[in-house]
Amino acid sequence: MKKKVAILGATGIVGYNFVKILDKHPFFEISELCASKRSKGKKYKDALKGEIDTNISYKTRNMIVKECTPNLDAQYLFSALSPDIAGKIEKDYAEKGYIVFSNAKSHRMKKNVPLIIPEVNWNHISMIDNQKTKGKIITNPNCSTIGLALGIHPIDKYFEIERITVVTLQAVSGAGYSGVSHLQINDNVIPHIEGEENKIINETNKILGNLNFNNEINKRKIKIDVHCNRVPVSNGHSESVFVKFKSNYSFSKIKKIWNNFKPEKRYLDLPSGIKQPIIYFDKNNYPQPKLHRNLAGGMCISIGNLKKSVNFHCQFVLLVHNTVRGAAGSSVLNAEYYYRDFG
Amino acid sequence: MKKKVAILGATGIVGYNFVKILDKHPFFEISELCASKRSKGKKYKDALKGEIDTNISYKTRNMIVKECTPNLDAQYLFSALSPDIAGKIEKDYAEKGYIVFSNAKSHRMKKNVPLIIPEVNWNHISMIDNQKTKGKIITNPNCSTIGLALGIHPIDKYFEIERITVVTLQAVSGAGYSGVSHLQINDNVIPHIEGEENKIINETNKILGNLNFNNEINKRKIKIDVHCNRVPVSNGHSESVFVKFKSNYSFSKIKKIWNNFKPEKRYLDLPSGIKQPIIYFDKNNYPQPKLHRNLAGGMCISIGNLKKSVNFHCQFVLLVHNTVRGAAGSSVLNAEYYYRDFG
Amino acid sequence: MKKKVAILGATGIVGYNFVKILDKHPFFEISELCASKRSKGKKYKDALKGEIDTNISYKTRNMIVKECTPNLDAQYLFSALSPDIAGKIEKDYAEKGYIVFSNAKSHRMKKNVPLIIPEVNWNHISMIDNQKTKGKIITNPNCSTIGLALGIHPIDKYFEIERITVVTLQAVSGAGYSGVSHLQINDNVIPHIEGEENKIINETNKILGNLNFNNEINKRKIKIDVHCNRVPVSNGHSESVFVKFKSNYSFSKIKKIWNNFKPEKRYLDLPSGIKQPIIYFDKNNYPQPKLHRNLAGGMCISIGNLKKSVNFHCQFVLLVHNTVRGAAGSSVLNAEYYYRDFG
Amino acid sequence: MKKKVAILGATGIVGYNFVKILDKHPFFEISELCASKRSKGKKYKDALKGEIDTNISYKTRNMIVKECTPNLDAQYLFSALSPDIAGKIEKDYAEKGYIVFSNAKSHRMKKNVPLIIPEVNWNHISMIDNQKTKGKIITNPNCSTIGLALGIHPIDKYFEIERITVVTLQAVSGAGYSGVSHLQINDNVIPHIEGEENKIINETNKILGNLNFNNEINKRKIKIDVHCNRVPVSNGHSESVFVKFKSNYSFSKIKKIWNNFKPEKRYLDLPSGIKQPIIYFDKNNYPQPKLHRNLAGGMCISIGNLKKSVNFHCQFVLLVHNTVRGAAGSSVLNAEYYYRDFG
Repeated sequence: MKKKVAILGATGIVGYNFVKILDKHPFFEISELCASKRSKGKKYKDALKGEIDTNISYKTRNMIVKECTPNLDAQYLFSALSPDIAGKIEKDYAEKGYIVFSNAKSHRMKKNVPLIIPEVNWNHISMIDNQKTKGKIITNPNCSTIGLALGIHPIDKYFEIERITVVTLQAVSGAGYSGVSHLQINDNVIPHIEGEENKIINETNKILGNLNFNNEINKRKIKIDVHCNRVPVSNGHSESVFVKFKSNYSFSKIKKIWNNFKPEKRYLDLPSGIKQPIIYFDKNNYPQPKLHRNLAGGMCISIGNLKKSVNFHCQFVLLVHNTVRGAAGSSVLNAEYYYRDFG
Repeated sequence: MKKKVAILGATGIVGYNFVKILDKHPFFEISELCASKRSKGKKYKDALKGEIDTNISYKTRNMIVKECTPNLDAQYLFSALSPDIAGKIEKDYAEKGYIVFSNAKSHRMKKNVPLIIPEVNWNHISMIDNQKTKGKIITNPNCSTIGLALGIHPIDKYFEIERITVVTLQAVSGAGYSGVSHLQINDNVIPHIEGEENKIINETNKILGNLNFNNEINKRKIKIDVHCNRVPVSNGHSESVFVKFKSNYSFSKIKKIWNNFKPEKRYLDLPSGIKQPIIYFDKNNYPQPKLHRNLAGGMCISIGNLKKSVNFHCQFVLLVHNTVRGAAGSSVLNAEYYYRDFG
Repeated sequence: MKKKVAILGATGIVGYNFVKILDKHPFFEISELCASKRSKGKKYKDALKGEIDTNISYKTRNMIVKECTPNLDAQYLFSALSPDIAGKIEKDYAEKGYIVFSNAKSHRMKKNVPLIIPEVNWNHISMIDNQKTKGKIITNPNCSTIGLALGIHPIDKYFEIERITVVTLQAVSGAGYSGVSHLQINDNVIPHIEGEENKIINETNKILGNLNFNNEINKRKIKIDVHCNRVPVSNGHSESVFVKFKSNYSFSKIKKIWNNFKPEKRYLDLPSGIKQPIIYFDKNNYPQPKLHRNLAGGMCISIGNLKKSVNFHCQFVLLVHNTVRGAAGSSVLNAEYYYRDFG
Repeated sequence: MKKKVAILGATGIVGYNFVKILDKHPFFEISELCASKRSKGKKYKDALKGEIDTNISYKTRNMIVKECTPNLDAQYLFSALSPDIAGKIEKDYAEKGYIVFSNAKSHRMKKNVPLIIPEVNWNHISMIDNQKTKGKIITNPNCSTIGLALGIHPIDKYFEIERITVVTLQAVSGAGYSGVSHLQINDNVIPHIEGEENKIINETNKILGNLNFNNEINKRKIKIDVHCNRVPVSNGHSESVFVKFKSNYSFSKIKKIWNNFKPEKRYLDLPSGIKQPIIYFDKNNYPQPKLHRNLAGGMCISIGNLKKSVNFHCQFVLLVHNTVRGAAGSSVLNAEYYYRDFG
């Protein structure tokens, strides 16, 4: 018997990515699609912003969208709600007993809410013991953070990172289906994304932090600088990363660590789990969004062009599919880990 | 009487930008257009890669292109030659007595060749006294270097820069008219530009260096990291810059320095001279290539989004029109300074 | 003394084009900028969708935007209102005595409302004698219609057109600043634009019709087929046109007619008037939006690639700047003609 | 035992599409990859223009490219050669006994060379009986022609087409990997493609013609007008088509004919064969290149927006993936039909 799941905020880009991943999922079955008043009562295919893929199942295409009503016929909820409403709605559902897997920023930095990239810090899941509600809230990080934190985690474990400076070149899908108009971004770069830089700084230090005996996080204190740019790319955030370590490192070791990084065996066969979450390309013009964003169905990140830095120790380029691994895909992976461990 | 000038490599993008600037120039008159064998004997409008603007003069449009023959009916030469042939050809012309203003990289780092951004280091011009030839070679820096060096020079003078890390987002015109195909770059980022990073590092430290009594440069030793990306933008290189100073600085002072930075009075009225080579925008989403690359006809650079950095002292965004201020326009400005001082 | 003018719907793309043209106009002076509630009380530069050009005057940038209140301190009104509200608002203003120059579709096909491209059918202006209101409404056609009707009018006069088939490739600015998202249109063609095809068919036959003694139009009955496509171009609608005439024609004659087509002498010196509203390029790969949309400040149309057709007589390509000649620019030209004739 | 096949011109876009389709083909096995001198001796992955997909087999990626030498270890040859050299080389191979499936235009219009879209005119294959050579040449049409001829063939059979006018909006991949630079085509339309219009006119009338008793074609005499545009789309040619029939037709009948059009049963299970080569969408904004070019792996064409025309009978929009169904995919399908019938 599959677990019933509802998608909150199902008609935006992240919501639609939840639908694409969950439409024929072996553990989960979409039982409810929720969105705002505007979409209420419409068939999903008609409520969706943008055009629906021809290979979404007939049942899902024609499911009637409802509002986020108090009682949903589902056990797990996937939230792609916008941050202005996510906070309250998710909390209400947690109180009612639902397990909420959220992509919204609202609860990410809360003391008792785990912020999880499963291959990196699944052990943080025990933070939910500090949630007093019957249900629980489990969050995944911001799209750029996921790429960065997943990419640096394995080398941080070996060489302890002291400082990072990152410049991002972010895709337009990060701003939603109609978030960036063609007139704005074609032939252009917008050198600012509201609120993004602080998210990357704070979330990274939470994710890489250590869980203490009270199931709280002692955050890392990596010194992080970020500058975010929006570029005319549909999907796939590129990041130019400069890293300084505390211990001795070598380039050959770094490359080996990345290519050998693996999830725990117990989770390897999960539907969204992949054997190699990080692919290192030994080419200076790789990775590129158009070529590599969809590797492993968009669930792995790519790294390339590792070289020496004078102000840090090394510099490299990293690519993450922002709406798959960087959003819906990560949340579903969280749910699969949860399902395996807690049912 | 105008000075006669020839343009070498006139049919590529930089060559064409020379033509656009010099077509109706008050000091200079195009007397020769030179290019490769392929173009020899053709009218300029037919030899040009790409389409010619409708407002180029009839005379120039129809001028017959020749090869780089030994004797040119011109005193000043502007070189947009490709680096594989520029070195020898420019040297030959200098030996024959021509004054060569070159955008090619071939001679830029030579000990007796000035590498000039006139508002920054016009005094380096006396390096030509060490050239034994009858003619002289005067170079302008690489397109990204011009933006960076012009932008940091005024704050370097006040606060002495110790370290810089720069990530560039470079326009496709930097690779020539057909250098980047639509299939390659649309919806994509290419995280590498061959040879570019070292140019920026080396040229910047030469430009900001001090001229000694032998008319040689003591190069600066700013520690510079660079990572270069190609993005789907036609014109205008964006640069995310992180700077660490040696002395005390303040943000309000930095902004004031940029907005008040001026060329020497004696050169203010030159045809390509502008009153304000640096415009600081107090907006976090400025400058943008599509909005600001053509300010002051493409001859000024724009800076914006100045803020605190934890690994450096400050970070900001800088924009330079790569084929105008970053190439042909800078070379013509060099020639105008030279004309004023030496005739 | 300049005439005071108000711009209705000033914050969208067409409204902004009105502002750009009228900001330093010799006959007119912007006295009011009106928009929806959302913009009320804001400075124009802050209310504008998109970014304001740096060369708009200080006064206009900082003018406080108001709603469309009943009494405006202006004699001429330029309307860029959206069609759902334009009909009533424009009528109300006409009743109050204002002269309304409208780009909205609401009144275009009304029996007593002139639909004008001044070089083509300025004589239709006497239709306003049938408007019972103290003020008057004068409209300009849809952006694609303006290009088509202006382009075929001179050859229609000579050879009488029987049939036309047109396929348009329309720019995204036609849908407003945020009308088309980058995700939708980059690397794509959308083969439909709601309502556009009928506008082109009906408006063209009205514009090319004859005014009778009652100041009403006997519409032409040219058989017109249209298919509209949206393409990833910022500005400039391209149209592939096939034409069948009733009389004998020759290609050389057609080209001569286009290049010699001129406005009446009396209007030649108007600020937005141009000597040559149609440029024919004798090149098969011209006109191109990026190269030719801004000729004559965007006020002339370009035609090229004239050749034989087997199902019609000839086929050619036509280009019109959709937000200048195709919208605001045409409306201002209407106002200048009106000002000259009626004051 | 698989048949050995060689790909001629393997390093360009069409050649690479042959590689992608044939890399793991059940009937055929790539034994030779041939290209120009420039590529000779290189590994395929290094010789390829553009970047190779990560899922091409190790064997193929590392196959050494050779020139088109007289003796190839293969029975079937797939030619993606450029037209300036294809004519002679293909003829030489046919004389040597090879079966050549060619995408080049060189032999397409020859009296004894079949020009085939298998679902449309596979019976034309008997034209090869008139080829005196030991081997044979079998061609597929131009990319735009394939879309058009496949789309109109089923309705032509029922209602007999008298006239067609077509305007194409063609993708840049049709011009090869570096054929169109980003500077040329971004934000632009180029209203001409050299030689394309005549190909569409002539090839369509050959394909739809009837084979007579001498195995020669009586060409159709449909009156066809074409105007071709290049647009900023990577893959997928859109065509706006206007059609006039000789017999009575109905819209509902036309839609039914398209959706029910099927290949002969005997060929349905071929590896590149698809059950439904034409999909009609009953939506006016479909088909769109980005959404529909890859349906059925790029092997089916899509049609939409069927409506009335006043100068013809009906008009509609058609989409074909130009490098799959419009080139390599069609040639491989020809080879599969041939293999089934002749071994």
